[in-house]
Parts: sequence; structure tokens; C-alpha cells
Amino acid sequence: MKEKLFFSSDYMEGAHPNIINRLAETNMHHTVGYGLDEYSDSAKERIRTACGCPNAQVEFLVGGTQTNATVIDAILRPYQGVIAANTGHISGHEAGAIEQSGHKVLCIPSTLGKISAGQIEEYIADYYNDDNHDHVVAPGMVYISQPTEYGTLYSLRELTDISSVCRKARIPLYLDGARLAYALACDENDVNLKDLASLCDVFYIGGTKCGTLFGEAVVIPDPNLISHFFTIIKQHGALFAKGRILGIQFDELFKDDLYLKIGRDAVRFAHRIKTALKENGYQLFFDTPTNQVFCVMDNKELVEFGEKVVYGFWEKYDSDHTVIRLATSWATKEEDVDSLIEILKKR
Amino acid sequence: MKEKLFFSSDYMEGAHPNIINRLAETNMHHTVGYGLDEYSDSAKERIRTACGCPNAQVEFLVGGTQTNATVIDAILRPYQGVIAANTGHISGHEAGAIEQSGHKVLCIPSTLGKISAGQIEEYIADYYNDDNHDHVVAPGMVYISQPTEYGTLYSLRELTDISSVCRKARIPLYLDGARLAYALACDENDVNLKDLASLCDVFYIGGTKCGTLFGEAVVIPDPNLISHFFTIIKQHGALFAKGRILGIQFDELFKDDLYLKIGRDAVRFAHRIKTALKENGYQLFFDTPTNQVFCVMDNKELVEFGEKVVYGFWEKYDSDHTVIRLATSWATKEEDVDSLIEILKKR
Amino acid sequence: MKEKLFFSSDYMEGAHPNIINRLAETNMHHTVGYGLDEYSDSAKERIRTACGCPNAQVEFLVGGTQTNATVIDAILRPYQGVIAANTGHISGHEAGAIEQSGHKVLCIPSTLGKISAGQIEEYIADYYNDDNHDHVVAPGMVYISQPTEYGTLYSLRELTDISSVCRKARIPLYLDGARLAYALACDENDVNLKDLASLCDVFYIGGTKCGTLFGEAVVIPDPNLISHFFTIIKQHGALFAKGRILGIQFDELFKDDLYLKIGRDAVRFAHRIKTALKENGYQLFFDTPTNQVFCVMDNKELVEFGEKVVYGFWEKYDSDHTVIRLATSWATKEEDVDSLIEILKKR
Amino acid sequence: MKEKLFFSSDYMEGAHPNIINRLAETNMHHTVGYGLDEYSDSAKERIRTACGCPNAQVEFLVGGTQTNATVIDAILRPYQGVIAANTGHISGHEAGAIEQSGHKVLCIPSTLGKISAGQIEEYIADYYNDDNHDHVVAPGMVYISQPTEYGTLYSLRELTDISSVCRKARIPLYLDGARLAYALACDENDVNLKDLASLCDVFYIGGTKCGTLFGEAVVIPDPNLISHFFTIIKQHGALFAKGRILGIQFDELFKDDLYLKIGRDAVRFAHRIKTALKENGYQLFFDTPTNQVFCVMDNKELVEFGEKVVYGFWEKYDSDHTVIRLATSWATKEEDVDSLIEILKKR
Repeated sequence: MKEKLFFSSDYMEGAHPNIINRLAETNMHHTVGYGLDEYSDSAKERIRTACGCPNAQVEFLVGGTQTNATVIDAILRPYQGVIAANTGHISGHEAGAIEQSGHKVLCIPSTLGKISAGQIEEYIADYYNDDNHDHVVAPGMVYISQPTEYGTLYSLRELTDISSVCRKARIPLYLDGARLAYALACDENDVNLKDLASLCDVFYIGGTKCGTLFGEAVVIPDPNLISHFFTIIKQHGALFAKGRILGIQFDELFKDDLYLKIGRDAVRFAHRIKTALKENGYQLFFDTPTNQVFCVMDNKELVEFGEKVVYGFWEKYDSDHTVIRLATSWATKEEDVDSLIEILKKR
Repeated sequence: MKEKLFFSSDYMEGAHPNIINRLAETNMHHTVGYGLDEYSDSAKERIRTACGCPNAQVEFLVGGTQTNATVIDAILRPYQGVIAANTGHISGHEAGAIEQSGHKVLCIPSTLGKISAGQIEEYIADYYNDDNHDHVVAPGMVYISQPTEYGTLYSLRELTDISSVCRKARIPLYLDGARLAYALACDENDVNLKDLASLCDVFYIGGTKCGTLFGEAVVIPDPNLISHFFTIIKQHGALFAKGRILGIQFDELFKDDLYLKIGRDAVRFAHRIKTALKENGYQLFFDTPTNQVFCVMDNKELVEFGEKVVYGFWEKYDSDHTVIRLATSWATKEEDVDSLIEILKKR
Repeated sequence: MKEKLFFSSDYMEGAHPNIINRLAETNMHHTVGYGLDEYSDSAKERIRTACGCPNAQVEFLVGGTQTNATVIDAILRPYQGVIAANTGHISGHEAGAIEQSGHKVLCIPSTLGKISAGQIEEYIADYYNDDNHDHVVAPGMVYISQPTEYGTLYSLRELTDISSVCRKARIPLYLDGARLAYALACDENDVNLKDLASLCDVFYIGGTKCGTLFGEAVVIPDPNLISHFFTIIKQHGALFAKGRILGIQFDELFKDDLYLKIGRDAVRFAHRIKTALKENGYQLFFDTPTNQVFCVMDNKELVEFGEKVVYGFWEKYDSDHTVIRLATSWATKEEDVDSLIEILKKR
Repeated sequence: MKEKLFFSSDYMEGAHPNIINRLAETNMHHTVGYGLDEYSDSAKERIRTACGCPNAQVEFLVGGTQTNATVIDAILRPYQGVIAANTGHISGHEAGAIEQSGHKVLCIPSTLGKISAGQIEEYIADYYNDDNHDHVVAPGMVYISQPTEYGTLYSLRELTDISSVCRKARIPLYLDGARLAYALACDENDVNLKDLASLCDVFYIGGTKCGTLFGEAVVIPDPNLISHFFTIIKQHGALFAKGRILGIQFDELFKDDLYLKIGRDAVRFAHRIKTALKENGYQLFFDTPTNQVFCVMDNKELVEFGEKVVYGFWEKYDSDHTVIRLATSWATKEEDVDSLIEILKKR
């Protein structure tokens, strides 16, 4: 029996071969725990260099929801909440992890996953203009994602504007880079790692969806921003005992600029799939430049399609149609893209 | 330069060779995420079989503190706390992770890491006998560890008595098995996995310290105990995206009873070290049967010792002495034990 | 100098004369604490009778935000959130009190403060239809207010429908009656206390805005709904030491149906004010039947108006206008309403 | 039938006559809400004067547990806990209110309710000396009570020493003055309000047990200590709508030094009772100088005693004896003390 094609998500395989090999090769070395080992040191140093911020604090955590919950809890005071797009991962897809540590997500409407400097500025102004704002959760930080949950990108201009608004209001800007490698691999992208380090107060470089078995690298350009972050990580159950496993993975990911290259094929494949969809009369739900492709499918057709392709359910479109997501990744093979396109042609 | 000997802890290396090989071998297979894959299914089935509880819910989490915080939060209601030894891992070494989710740890004094059925019974009775108990946190579950943080073991008799007290009081018994493989490998031990499954309401089988890169397997013999555990895991940032990485590791750990055998050498080595310590006039701080050795060292001697051996600081003994911990593990080599013993002889 | 007219809110004075007199009269009686006294018993019994639910658990808390936070925390499990109108008091005006105890407010858009059975049904259906709903906060209860924050009322038909949806989904319905006396005093209202007791799973009868110095009476028709509510109240800092002070106040409020009558003048006065506003060419922001009047004022005119009348700021209307709230209460005097209307006429 | 004598606690009656009269007298005055009224202003000013700290922030909350939970949550960061005596009110008698907001109570053993500067210093030193202290909750503030839960007093010398240790360690000292009036009324006491204001970083002046219907006045000598305290109070459900009711009560309590005198008779009565107990052969459980008397009673005798006197259960002494508490208060009448002493004589 022929195996199905896997396009449901970007975390369906193990790790980039360089990483799995290095893990095997270093397996029996002895190191101390909790990320105080030499592999972690090396990885942190590579990341600092790549980001152009030699003093940055870099910490490795396991997954995205965990990282978001830990960072946000570390930054906010009890009376503060975090501004985010209503489509932000923290707003609706983290099972209440932000609220679990006592903080409110202050949602503002997004456009294709993005929020603007103007919207943030207005939110903050409205807060201060409200005579009763002492009865209301104060905006204490801003959360955005790059690429967004919809695969869209903030331009350097947009990000600079958001950063300015945050700095004027003296609230930190936090960027979720779960799929950052796919942003960095896009022609449309004009924001590099150094830009992130200069415009954000905290951001994380995603590993789980970008080539590692797991792991996210939190970068804090000004190491004084968060006091006792190590203990807060521990308290959130996010301190990894064998920290070197994270260190080794990110050390590989930032060796020879692998992170900058690892998403290129995925983005190219996504473009091929989008083109094929359009050529074959499918409606793109939104047309976004990174590794996620969203399209509308007839429910009947979807049954047959699902027998050949593992896809992601996104949302109901109408009673007869469904929005699905097809995601490529560093692990996607060109031959599987070819096969997928063949299936789309047979419509 | 000669490398130091590593005896500081039991999480200083990668994974058992079977595990690292299987991870490499399966690396590019496609699976769905979040532990719904076939590797996880197989691992869960092997664990159910090993524990003799075919209906058990089994979930894989990443680390011990995370597992404790998630399980305890899933079980307790807001007005309840968890009874634990004052030396329990949750009492003092998890950076307030239990309190972070709103629950109080109700400490009772331990004897070498253990608490007794009688103590628990008395705590519960005192609570109900207090006229003002409605103003006090109610005991809602019991936490114990096997082996304990001090390396000691509950006997089957002791565990049975604790279980009876809990069931009479209708509060769940939760057992932390972070180092469970080293208990199972001891001659002194008379509690097997099936006993745990019949006497505990929840327990976890430790992976991180017992042969995996990371991972703990939570076993809930009665799958109705916790509602929506998956969402609670997600909320605690403990849901692992590439769940199959956990599944593969535990599948290997429970293939051909590896988990029952993996701690044997470690325990034998610990006995050799304890014997050598005693023969060379060192004072054991406590004499416990598993893979952790605690002894008192003169501070001056310790400086020299530390140049050759990486040990664990346990606590200050007096102004001139320190209690140190020497831990063996599945990864310890006999030749390193030989070298350590040589060093001890040269006193 | 002439004193200003006070129409800014409904909690600007002390208590109904009957209440303040009874407090003075009983001042030196000895009772036990924490609401276990005979005054509290009598008040609870009167409330049970008024609500037609002889077995109800009745508890007295101090204020609205406290009551909402305590009740919601008592009902929800960690993985659950509370459905509410985006204009609900808990959504935006409680400084994150619900999130403080770890729960997400699941907002749905309101129409003049109200949400419909259909919206709730759809929200719940969408949750269950989402393939990934295990990653999302589960709807665990519904919060509505009567009258709403905008002064509008649910009809008996609407409330019955909402109750049916909740019961079908097996999630409790909670009604915030902070200003309930003003609903009960309206001709437009067709929902009485017995209806509330039969349709809601929990509701509270507001005292603070309806004649007491402070205090809200939580009614739980089925006393088995919440376990250990007393301890949860204590944990939330909401247990009142001299409980009899609450008991005495509610005992007076429910003597001779005072609660049913106490809002009548306030509602009549609000109608007079609305009529005067309309007759004098002011725009009502919304036209609602209870004791709150919302109108649009020119900012220049407002300066002068504010010298004579203490009003409530509601929100900015446009750059030249402001929405203000004028509230009447049990304490409003007809002569002050006359004076206010005179001022409005002088436009 | 003769009424029983009430000596069970110090919150069994209403308020001091001056207070209840003033509440009645001001009942229909209009004021703004939330403590921004002129009565609250006046009360705050009187308290600042009495404490000799003209810039202090003063806020009125409702009850003790609420005040403790709110203040502690406002001060601590997530990775910090509060050092307290194991007998402290927050340690065991607040139903987990401190843990509910995510913080651990770091208990140290007390001597008759007190902890010493030396113990605190050692706790902090041990924390910093622990190589693994990053895995442990950091001491972030110190909580003590005056008088303690056992009725004992810190001397000026002891309090000065504790304050020095805290300031050296840069952690705030918080003093719970639930029964402060009874300390201030003792001959043995050498700590006045100005001392508290100069040695503590936050403290509260108890009203509930010292003459008000309810209410505690939090004093923060340096108003910059806590940012956005108002919002944090609101978030904890502790913001009182009709704030003037608190203001009026504390305005009376600090008029003509009433607070300094209100506990005098209570302390004198407690001395009379202790003398009578000793003269009649009863064993004092501890002999403390304030308004609480603790003695050991034979269980059989207690049955008869309980028919005439409402006393407080403290704890079981042995199988035949019970420790009871007899509390006097501002409301106790000399004739009731006479009657109690008669009963004790009839042994």
C-alpha cells in the first residue's frame, strides 16, 4: 500500500540530519546539567553573534506554548496583561496557559494575523484616557509573531513602528518566532536576526518547527530585562535537565548559517503548491509568503483528497466547504511536492 | 590533560544506545504530532502491559517538575493541597511550581525521605478534628517518591498501608518515580510496577534519569480519574509537539524489560563506592540502597577531590565539613568506578 | 454655595434607613462570626423563601468583583473558561480578577450588553467541532448580568432559552445581579426571583448598589453544586469576620419585600430624566429601561453641566462629544431629579 | 434564661459607638466611590499624622486574609516567597490564600508566635549559600504579626533587629497588625505607631478586631514601594465600592487617639482573667500580655463551662484536656468579666 503524503504540519519528522548525527556522536560525553554545559555555551555564543548582540541572555526552552507562558509571566506584573492579535497563538491556541499564570491577553483585531503600530498606540492611549483605567488590566507588553499564525510577515518598516510605540510607552515588545526560519527564507522578508535583536525586547527563535527535535531559543538583548529568569523557567516546569541536548541542537542550527538556509526549500515548495492550487481552480483562503498554504476545499472532494494526503484542518468555511492548511517544512521532499501537485491536477 | 570523573548526578549523558539509535533510525518517518502517533501507541501499550493495567491512561511529559506540577494541578481542587514529606522534591526543589498553580504543599516531617501511613492518617484526622478546618487548606492528595530524594525505598508493606489510608480518606495517592529504575534494580526492593499500578492512583515512570534524553511516563490506572488531562498538559506548557520522540524513547525503554535492567549496574557501582568509603574511613551521611551515595567530606580534602571528581553538593555539614552526593547511573562505566575508588584509597 | 447634584452612580450614599437603623440597634449584641449567626440564618431563610428554593445554599460576600471571581473559580476546572459578553463586567472592568485565579473569559459580542442563547449554542458547537479543541480552553460556564452593564434586561423567554442551552451542554449558568433590584422594579421586566432560581445554577442578589452599605447574596439553588464553597470564599479573602453585619443588612432587605420595592423610584426617576433629555434634544446613547441613563453631550456644554451635576464618564463619542451616564438609585430624591431636569431645560 | 458570656473572640459585636453613630449621621451624604471621598482623605491624613509619615500611601481594605493576600501578591515577584513563622496567620489559617496567587510561604519555626532576626538572617544566608538556590523559591519579603497569633509582642529591640536584617537583604518587612490596638494598649509594649512606620516597609492597622465593623488600614511609608496598588486591590476583589464607609470608620478610630485607648480595658480584663485562672489552679497554655488568654481545661469541666461561656477552641492538649482561648475586646463589659471570674472560682 502506498504511503500517504504528509503536509499536515511542520513538526511531523525528527530533526535535521546534522542535529541527529551530532546527538548520536556526543551521546556519551559527560556534562553538567541545566544548560550550564559547553555545548549550550557554544550555541548561545553563535546565536549572540548571529543576532549581533554580544551581551544577550539566551535561554533554551522546550516548546512554544511553554516559552510564551514563561516569558510573559516573567515580564508582566500582576496588574498587567499582554496585548496580542486576536489570532495570536497565545490568544486562542494555548489552552489558557497565559491565564493559568494569572495574566489577561488583551486582544486586538488582526488583519491576516498582523496588528499595526497604530492599533497598539490607540489601545494604550485609550487605556490612559479612560477615567476608570485603574479598574482595568494595564497593557504591560506586546506579543507578535513572525511569521504570524497565518503565515504573513511584518516588514521592517512595520516592525520598527511597533517597536517605537512600545518604547515610547515603555512596555516590552516580545516576538514569537516559532516558524522564524521560514520568514528568514522568504524573498519577501526584509527583517533579519539583527533587526529583531535591535527592535524587540525579547524574542524566541523557533527550533521545533525549524529542524530540531524540539527546543526554542529565547533571546533577551538586554540581559537586565528579566531578573531570576532561570528560577522562573524552573517554576514553569520548563527547565530541561540535560540542557546540553538543547545546546547541541541549536549549536548545529547556527553552525554555518544553517538556520538561515533551512527553510528555503520549504518556502519554494509552498510557492509551487500555491501556484498549482491556483492553476487548478482552487481558492486560496489567504495568500501568504511562507511555508503554510491555506485553501478552501469542497467537503466531498476533501474526503478523497484525505485518502492520499494528510492535511491540516483549519476551520469550517461554509456548510459545504472547509479551509485546510498544507504545510511544508525543512523535511519535505521535492518528490512529495510533485506527487501532491499531480493529485491537485487530477481534479 | 586527564578528564575528570563524573559522579555529580544521573543526568550527565545522553540516552541509552538503543534509544539514540532508534531515534536516528526513525528520524525521517512522518507521523502526526502530540503523541497520537504509532510509536507512542506502542510505548503506551508496553507500559500498560508491564504495569498489568490494560485500561490505564499513559501520557508522556518532558521533565519531573513539569510532571509534578501538571498532575497535581489536574487532581486538586482550589481548596485542596498536597501532603508531602518536607524533603519531597515538590516541597523545596521545584522553585514554587506547585504554588504557581495555586496549591499549597502540606509538609510533614520525613525520616530519610519517607513518610508513614500513620503520619498521613494523623494529618487527615487532625484536619477533620479541627473545629476551624473550613479555614484551612484541605488535604486533597498524597505525594511520595520511590526511591525518595534520599535514595531510600518504601517497602510493599509501607506502600500498601499508605494506599489504604488514602483510599479510606478518598484522596488520590501520587508517586514520583523520577529514579524508579534504580529502585526496581535493588535487591532490597519488593515493590514492582504492578504493585505501583494497584496501590497508586497516579505515578510516573522516570525517563530523564533512567536512560532517555528526557521524558517521564505518567500512568493513571483508572483512566476516569482526571478529566481533560490532555488540555491541562497543554495549559502547563507540557504538551510535546513531536510526541513521537517521547514515544520512541519509552518504546525502547520497555522493550525486552530494558527498564527493569537498566539500573542494575548503577546500583552495584553505588554499593562498591559505599563500601570503599566505609573502608577508607569516610562517614556516610545516610546509608541508602539505590544509586545515590551521600558522604561527609572534610572541606580541605574536598578541594583536592574536586579537582579529580565532579561531585554533587548536598548541604553544609559543619564549618569544616560538607555533605556531598556521588551518583551512579545507567551510563556509569566500571572503569570510572575503579578510578574513583583508587582516589578514595589515597586518602 | 449650593451643593452639586449627584447622579454619577448608584453607590454614592450609605444604606437604606431601615438597614442603618437595624445595624445601630443590634450593634452591641454578641454573635459568633463568619455568618454562622442568627441574623444571617434569618436573612438566608428569607432569601430562600423569596426565591422559592427552600434548599438553596446562600452565602453573603462583600462586593461584585469579589463575588464573580470567587464563584467562577469555585465552579471552573483549570481547563475551562467562562463565556461572557465582551461588555460583561468580568470581561473588562474587574482588573483581571478572573484571570488572576487562572481562568480565561471567553468573550462573545454583545448587543446592548446582552448575548443570546443562539450565540452561546454556536460557541459551544464550534468548540466541539474544532478538531483541535483539546488545545483550546473549554467553555465551562456562562456568565450573564441582569440588568446588564448597559441597563438592558433579559426577558423570561431569552433567559429560558439560555438556560436550556446551558443545561443541554451541562455547563452552569451564572447570573450577576449587581443591580437586580432595578430590574425587578421595571414594568418591562418579566423575570422574578423564582424564575432566576429555577433557570440559573448560581446567581447573586446585589446589595451594594441596591440599598446596603455593601454585600452581595450568592444563591445556589442546588446546594450540591459547589463543594467546600466556604473554604474557597476564605481563600479568596472574601470571608467576612463579622458575618452578622451582612446578615442584618440582607435580613432587612428581604423583610416585607423591601428588595422588590427599593428600586421603583429610581426607575421612575430614570424615565423622567430620559424623557427630559429627549424633550430637550439630547441624544440617548442607548435607551434602556432600568436606572442608568446614557446620553451624548457636547464637550463644551459638559464643562458647565459638570459644575452643577456629578455625572459618570462612560466613553468618548467623537472628538467633540462624550457619552455620560446618569444613574439614579434607592437614595435619589425627587427634588434632585426636578433640579436636574431644570438644568437640562436651560439648554 | 440567662444569656451566655461571650469570650470566644474579639469580633463578636458591631462597632465602637462613635463609629456606628457617625455612620448613621453621615448616611445620606453623597460622595464619590472607591475611597476617593473626603472622609477617606481625612482618615488617611489622621493615620499619616499618627504614624509620623506624611507621605505614606494609606489604603483601606476589608479583612485580614484579604489584606495579607493582596499586599503579599503586590510585593513579591513570581520567583519569590514570603518568610513567616510556621504559626503565622498566613501559614496555616488563610485557606491557601497566599498560594492562590502563586506564592509560597517559607515557614520558619516560631517561639510563642515570634521569629527572630537571627533566624531570618540565617534563612537568607542559607538560601544564598546553597549552590542550587536557583532551583528554589527566593525569600522576597518577611511577614510578622504584632501582637502575634499567640498574643505575644515584639520588643522595639527585636523589631529593630528584624528590620535591619531585611534592609540589609533588601527585602521588605511586612507587619500584620490585625490586633494592633491590643499591643498598643499593653504596658509591656515599647513599639509605637511611629516605630512601625520607620521599621516596616508595609504594615496594616487592624480595624475588624479593634472597634470597626470591618476594615484594615494598609500603611506604606514610602509611597513608591508598590506600583499600581489600586489596580491590584481591585484585582483581588478587595476594592470597596462605598469606600467612604471605611474612611468614616478609620476617621473615628484615629480621632482623639481613640485607637491608642480602645484596647486598654480589654488588656486589663485579660489580666484579671489570667490572674483568676492562676488563682484557681488552671494552667495557662502560654502567658501572654495582650487580649487573648490561653488555658488548659479538663474536657469534663469544659462541658459545663461551655454551657455558661462561649469560648474559643484552640487545640487538643491531650486525650483528657483541651486548650481554649478566652478573648476580651473593646466591647467586653467589666460585669461580664466579673461573672466569668465567679464561674472560675466555683471550680
